[in-house]
Amino acid sequence: MKGLPVSPLAPSGFPDLPDIAGVEAAIGRAGFYKHERPDLLLIRCIKGTRAAGVFTSNAVGSAPTDWCKQALSATRGAARGLLINAGCANSFTGPAGDAACKRSLEAAAEKLSVETREMLSASTGVIGVVLDDSKIAAALPKMEMAPVRWPEAAAAIMTTDTFPKGSGATCKIGDADVRIAGIAKGSGMIAPDMATMLAFVFTDAALSAPILKTLLRQENETSFNSITVDGDRSTNDCVLLFATGQANVAPIADAKDERLNDFRAALSRVLADLAIQIVRDGEGATKLVTVNVEGAANDASAKAIARTICESPLVKTAIAGEDANWGRIVMAIGRSDQPVKRDMIGVRFGDLVAARNGMISEEYDEAAMSAYMKAAELEISVTVGPGGGRARMFTCDLTKRYVEINGDYRS
Amino acid sequence: MKGLPVSPLAPSGFPDLPDIAGVEAAIGRAGFYKHERPDLLLIRCIKGTRAAGVFTSNAVGSAPTDWCKQALSATRGAARGLLINAGCANSFTGPAGDAACKRSLEAAAEKLSVETREMLSASTGVIGVVLDDSKIAAALPKMEMAPVRWPEAAAAIMTTDTFPKGSGATCKIGDADVRIAGIAKGSGMIAPDMATMLAFVFTDAALSAPILKTLLRQENETSFNSITVDGDRSTNDCVLLFATGQANVAPIADAKDERLNDFRAALSRVLADLAIQIVRDGEGATKLVTVNVEGAANDASAKAIARTICESPLVKTAIAGEDANWGRIVMAIGRSDQPVKRDMIGVRFGDLVAARNGMISEEYDEAAMSAYMKAAELEISVTVGPGGGRARMFTCDLTKRYVEINGDYRS
Repeated sequence: MKGLPVSPLAPSGFPDLPDIAGVEAAIGRAGFYKHERPDLLLIRCIKGTRAAGVFTSNAVGSAPTDWCKQALSATRGAARGLLINAGCANSFTGPAGDAACKRSLEAAAEKLSVETREMLSASTGVIGVVLDDSKIAAALPKMEMAPVRWPEAAAAIMTTDTFPKGSGATCKIGDADVRIAGIAKGSGMIAPDMATMLAFVFTDAALSAPILKTLLRQENETSFNSITVDGDRSTNDCVLLFATGQANVAPIADAKDERLNDFRAALSRVLADLAIQIVRDGEGATKLVTVNVEGAANDASAKAIARTICESPLVKTAIAGEDANWGRIVMAIGRSDQPVKRDMIGVRFGDLVAARNGMISEEYDEAAMSAYMKAAELEISVTVGPGGGRARMFTCDLTKRYVEINGDYRS
Repeated sequence: MKGLPVSPLAPSGFPDLPDIAGVEAAIGRAGFYKHERPDLLLIRCIKGTRAAGVFTSNAVGSAPTDWCKQALSATRGAARGLLINAGCANSFTGPAGDAACKRSLEAAAEKLSVETREMLSASTGVIGVVLDDSKIAAALPKMEMAPVRWPEAAAAIMTTDTFPKGSGATCKIGDADVRIAGIAKGSGMIAPDMATMLAFVFTDAALSAPILKTLLRQENETSFNSITVDGDRSTNDCVLLFATGQANVAPIADAKDERLNDFRAALSRVLADLAIQIVRDGEGATKLVTVNVEGAANDASAKAIARTICESPLVKTAIAGEDANWGRIVMAIGRSDQPVKRDMIGVRFGDLVAARNGMISEEYDEAAMSAYMKAAELEISVTVGPGGGRARMFTCDLTKRYVEINGDYRS
């Protein structure tokens, strides 16, 4: 999978990310890939750092996500280190996988002079293969901890990604200046076998683990949980948020504290930016599509409808063909198994009205629609009934290249 | 879409179907397609015929499915006629679509000398376009009712199908010889815009509408409701079962009557045969795949897991690439949102064991797997836990040709 051309939807370059006081990193090569490339990222956080995570809801899970859940629970979020490898997901590997995960973290903890229980772990790669932790143990001595170089860190966790993904922000908590920097990899389950969407976000704010968890869960819902490339939810997905506490933030006891408003907005922007970069790197993608749903019974129902539209093969192939095939969108709304009012259904492409009140619109203009569909970024908005439920999701098109990449991978 | 090559999975020819006493048909051309081809099928059933139907659960539905539901209810299943057109689904067309559907049936009823309320209707084609019933009215006078020629009837309802689909059986009800003949079209929602799976089954048995309905619902569950090509559920799907009562069957009052066992088995075979022919004609399909699930909490849960495997783009593209990518199957099991026991999950390809008890199998043989995957017909069997729930579903692979056909259609 080396040498994939960069996605046509890639950003123009890697952004300037702020330094986060209290975070160091090293990259290395364990050799999980046949070709030369870094496949290890080790992070050390300063004492006092607090962390929170959200993890895949795939029932199979993986050794590293299982580890993180128990470690964050056992230490109440007092994390000091993070070891990430690309090339082996260490998922569906039973007790042998758990033991290999733990041994790799013991070795990393020793190098970082922290407790093993303070280590977090993330793996991405082939499902069903037990992690060969001896490769990691051999690589660790060669890795030098230093201030984080974000582009290199983001590149070290890539698998079939065609560009490294980063996003940062600065904001205020009370009078204190606070910085946020995040990196991500993957594209849902579109990376073949590389069943992973991973994101790691760091801030120098001083925030407790429960507050981090609350903020992350809330903002994750409209960012990573609002993207889909192919509906195939990975066994290894995780988003981890670390707060080093090095910014001069006055103590905050409650996630609802108004002083967090600016931070919450900044975190939201960073997570959404990373999530959309993942869609931009969707395998074979040539279109970035925003789907808005309104008029649903509630927000969850709106999201289920948005997801059905975003994951419909017929909608996605029509978009690949630059076909404003609104009938397929109506079909997808109808098959969502959500309460909808057929005679109130409307469909818009950008500002162009295709259907309104359960029928084709009188303003329907095929030529204008066709012209609109040629853009690389599209917005589809649907009304499904009289309710107040709304949702927005992001997806990409389904092209022959997706089939090619995912059909040819292991062979 | 004319001139699509015949699916490599097509049967060797159209089967010999039995004559069903009391059924006549005519084919015609209303001109819903630009090219020359029949697009109308009109059926007349003898007085005393009883009918039952199952219809799409897509909330959008269509004018013809709405009509059939109300007509079967109003007449308690006393159907005499059936008008089917290809080329226009008459779905999402509001009151104008309902009125056009009714006018087309009034014209057909007059030709057949039956009541309009005794007519049933089915349409397949583009969503969102109101049926031009004047084309049907113009075509009807040229159509001659005659004994059914099943291959021609099956061809007249095709849209992007690459071969006509039929299946028949003979069986006994008590001492009476009974015949069953059925035709079908489509392939779930894989036919682009031609959003329809339609099947029409006729028997000369004398059975009441409630008994027909019970049998059809039960047998539909393991046939048409057990196939999926792309998960895109049409607005127009319907299966109609007609019983003309011309065979010399003693009255039966209850669907559980043991005298129905042979008929039920024969009906089951016919429905399953038609359903699998639809998968064989899945757009771009090169593999017919049977997915068996066992060990689930219950049969419904097993079916949900089977459906997730069958509809996973990563599983389907791996099959297209002849890759025994069992990790993706494990991923799909895990993302089904059904109760599963990770450490009991097993995966087999044919008789070859890939995974067992939550890990790769010791018998795993990549060379044997690769050889197995080259066959045109594959069987994947998974164990997901200790339960008694089982299900079987049928699907096909996802190829570049699918993307091509569905991306290029309207443009």
